[in-house]
Amino acid sequence: MQKIKYGLIGTSGRMGKEVKSLMEEYGNTLVFSYDIDGEWKSGEPQVIIDFSSPDAFDKSIDYALKLNVPLVNGTTALNNEQINKLKNISKNIPVVQSFNFSLGIQMLLKCTEILKEKLPDWDIEISETHHRFKKDKPSGTALMIKNVIEKEINISSLRLGNVAGEHTVYFGGLGEVLLVKHTALSRRAFAEGAVKAAYFLLDKSNGFYTIKDVLFNS
Amino acid sequence: MQKIKYGLIGTSGRMGKEVKSLMEEYGNTLVFSYDIDGEWKSGEPQVIIDFSSPDAFDKSIDYALKLNVPLVNGTTALNNEQINKLKNISKNIPVVQSFNFSLGIQMLLKCTEILKEKLPDWDIEISETHHRFKKDKPSGTALMIKNVIEKEINISSLRLGNVAGEHTVYFGGLGEVLLVKHTALSRRAFAEGAVKAAYFLLDKSNGFYTIKDVLFNS
Amino acid sequence: MQKIKYGLIGTSGRMGKEVKSLMEEYGNTLVFSYDIDGEWKSGEPQVIIDFSSPDAFDKSIDYALKLNVPLVNGTTALNNEQINKLKNISKNIPVVQSFNFSLGIQMLLKCTEILKEKLPDWDIEISETHHRFKKDKPSGTALMIKNVIEKEINISSLRLGNVAGEHTVYFGGLGEVLLVKHTALSRRAFAEGAVKAAYFLLDKSNGFYTIKDVLFNS
Amino acid sequence: MQKIKYGLIGTSGRMGKEVKSLMEEYGNTLVFSYDIDGEWKSGEPQVIIDFSSPDAFDKSIDYALKLNVPLVNGTTALNNEQINKLKNISKNIPVVQSFNFSLGIQMLLKCTEILKEKLPDWDIEISETHHRFKKDKPSGTALMIKNVIEKEINISSLRLGNVAGEHTVYFGGLGEVLLVKHTALSRRAFAEGAVKAAYFLLDKSNGFYTIKDVLFNS
Repeated sequence: MQKIKYGLIGTSGRMGKEVKSLMEEYGNTLVFSYDIDGEWKSGEPQVIIDFSSPDAFDKSIDYALKLNVPLVNGTTALNNEQINKLKNISKNIPVVQSFNFSLGIQMLLKCTEILKEKLPDWDIEISETHHRFKKDKPSGTALMIKNVIEKEINISSLRLGNVAGEHTVYFGGLGEVLLVKHTALSRRAFAEGAVKAAYFLLDKSNGFYTIKDVLFNS
Repeated sequence: MQKIKYGLIGTSGRMGKEVKSLMEEYGNTLVFSYDIDGEWKSGEPQVIIDFSSPDAFDKSIDYALKLNVPLVNGTTALNNEQINKLKNISKNIPVVQSFNFSLGIQMLLKCTEILKEKLPDWDIEISETHHRFKKDKPSGTALMIKNVIEKEINISSLRLGNVAGEHTVYFGGLGEVLLVKHTALSRRAFAEGAVKAAYFLLDKSNGFYTIKDVLFNS
Repeated sequence: MQKIKYGLIGTSGRMGKEVKSLMEEYGNTLVFSYDIDGEWKSGEPQVIIDFSSPDAFDKSIDYALKLNVPLVNGTTALNNEQINKLKNISKNIPVVQSFNFSLGIQMLLKCTEILKEKLPDWDIEISETHHRFKKDKPSGTALMIKNVIEKEINISSLRLGNVAGEHTVYFGGLGEVLLVKHTALSRRAFAEGAVKAAYFLLDKSNGFYTIKDVLFNS
Repeated sequence: MQKIKYGLIGTSGRMGKEVKSLMEEYGNTLVFSYDIDGEWKSGEPQVIIDFSSPDAFDKSIDYALKLNVPLVNGTTALNNEQINKLKNISKNIPVVQSFNFSLGIQMLLKCTEILKEKLPDWDIEISETHHRFKKDKPSGTALMIKNVIEKEINISSLRLGNVAGEHTVYFGGLGEVLLVKHTALSRRAFAEGAVKAAYFLLDKSNGFYTIKDVLFNS
């Protein structure tokens, strides 16, 4: 794999650390970073990855435009206005934005899409398990799955110890059951998707891309 | 295993057929039966098994008392009055009564009892899956599990195709998860427990026994 | 759904009974049957389904050609010569042949195909569980899955009580796991696929079709 | 819970860090530590926990004897001679030693013990899944489970991505399946067991205890 120079916004956050560690493992070089502690620069990045908070959002856009490089944005809880701003600047630079960079979840959604189409008479159930500290019920990802199925279906939510995150979609016919289950082991799942997105953008023309484009059109 | 002569009430029902088939497999001989079609007798039974409906209840008791043999009663939906009647006649003959003769479910309850005692700080969740035709939610067995745990816990109920019955109890600590899961493959599970109960009663003194006694005190 | 008249070869076999029962449920009429007990005919079938043994193979072909109707063949253990014969007669009538008519297994294979392509660096494991009476290890279906993956991968085979059949394909990345699991509850799974194939053939031109065509091109 | 002062051998190791972090969370105070970097002491510990390497073994024993406090030893790969040494010094101080401090695994072993006794005719299978970097096959814990069952049974080993550790014991009868599954989410599982052992020892007389004593006799 090609070695690259990259910039990182939100370096000291939990996802920032995870991305940095993975990029090092791949032999890539951090040449620019911005964080709560300020800015640091030792070269020209080929791409910028942002896993900071919505507060640093404008700063992140300014840097990508000024340096004129592709931007991967994985910040959670962006509002519609911010999403639109990203779409606007994607006329000038290539942008990937997603709330969930896990490749596995994207593949689970893909399988779900096929199964609900080919097994129209089967019952469907969704089940998700997360740690006891998670406040929302059901999880945002479970709602994404439901959205793909486009039917009024039941979601079971279990809250259990320190489970990082499990999502299962069940399809039940009268003689058989088929299920697809995703288990997140750690934040590394999300870092891998973001890094894949960064590589994806390197040779792309300007435009607004999603994690689906990264997976299915590359 | 000892070969026995037995009587069966409710021979043509779904559970009756299952018990008969299993008893044949074990080399035992049906010498007495009572059913919607009437009575049939070719010898003296050593034990009577009843998997009929609450309607045939009195008949079943009369036979057991008249023949003076142990009685296994697995009829669903007995009311309290009928249960009390069974307890009364158990002064004269040994009786086993249970709403769920599956050995596996009893063992799941046993494990649950131990785990809830030894892992008091762990989160607990119950999940059950049954066919789409099942009307009650949650299942009676899930409520039996909850009853063992003696805490206000969440039960997730999935209704899916033609699933015979699955019950899972999850225990979640901050670094690990332990779960016990039971899957019913067919009615044979219940027939095996009833047959085991029949053998159990052969040398017992009068009294009212449960499936727990069959498993844990034999 | 359209009501049809159909013929059945192997009526008294376990799969034959299952197909007949399902066809009745759908309101279809058996007008022709052939079995170890001989031939029976009360009308002109629109399609013939064969779940007999390889011995009855020639008879089945003769009937389909003579009556000039589509043929669904689900006989296990056909040899290459017999498969070729089916391909030959498919110049004159439409034919569907498969060793596994479960829709769920076909969908599991479809998902596996997509996942192995989109997750090339992830580890893959196959696990299958069947009843203690099953002699072959690993199962034929597990080998079909391995064949789709086109890599040298490990298959774990568990032999357990009376389990009808479970197949799981695991994909493991460094931060997440995705798995697809199929559970056969009963032979009904296979009957449903065969009936679907029969309907599929009703308006097809001559040719040799697979269960994949039934699912993905209809 | 009582607040205590404790000592830690192997402070900078991965398990050492985990124990320290958990002890802090419980409000306990580290007053003595020994490591590759040397010794540090600010008070008198009430108990010593050792998660170092076999090399530091003698040092750990010397400290516990000199300070005359209970010792929890969770060092992996101790040899028989070292185990015997621990048994010897347990005449002078209370000692807990175990190769696996996970409470969940101990409970899985306990359930397995009960199930194999009460379900003697059922088939048993063990399955374990670990990360691709694990070299031994099957896992030591799977062998511990097999040891409890005392029969020649099959162990399936899956190596998959970055899975921390899963162990499942299946019991299969002719109509049902019962399984017990343990999933390690992180090293915290092991730290919790060690801390529980430390508290257990506080009021114990001299002697050699196992993690089972901690769980079942306290």
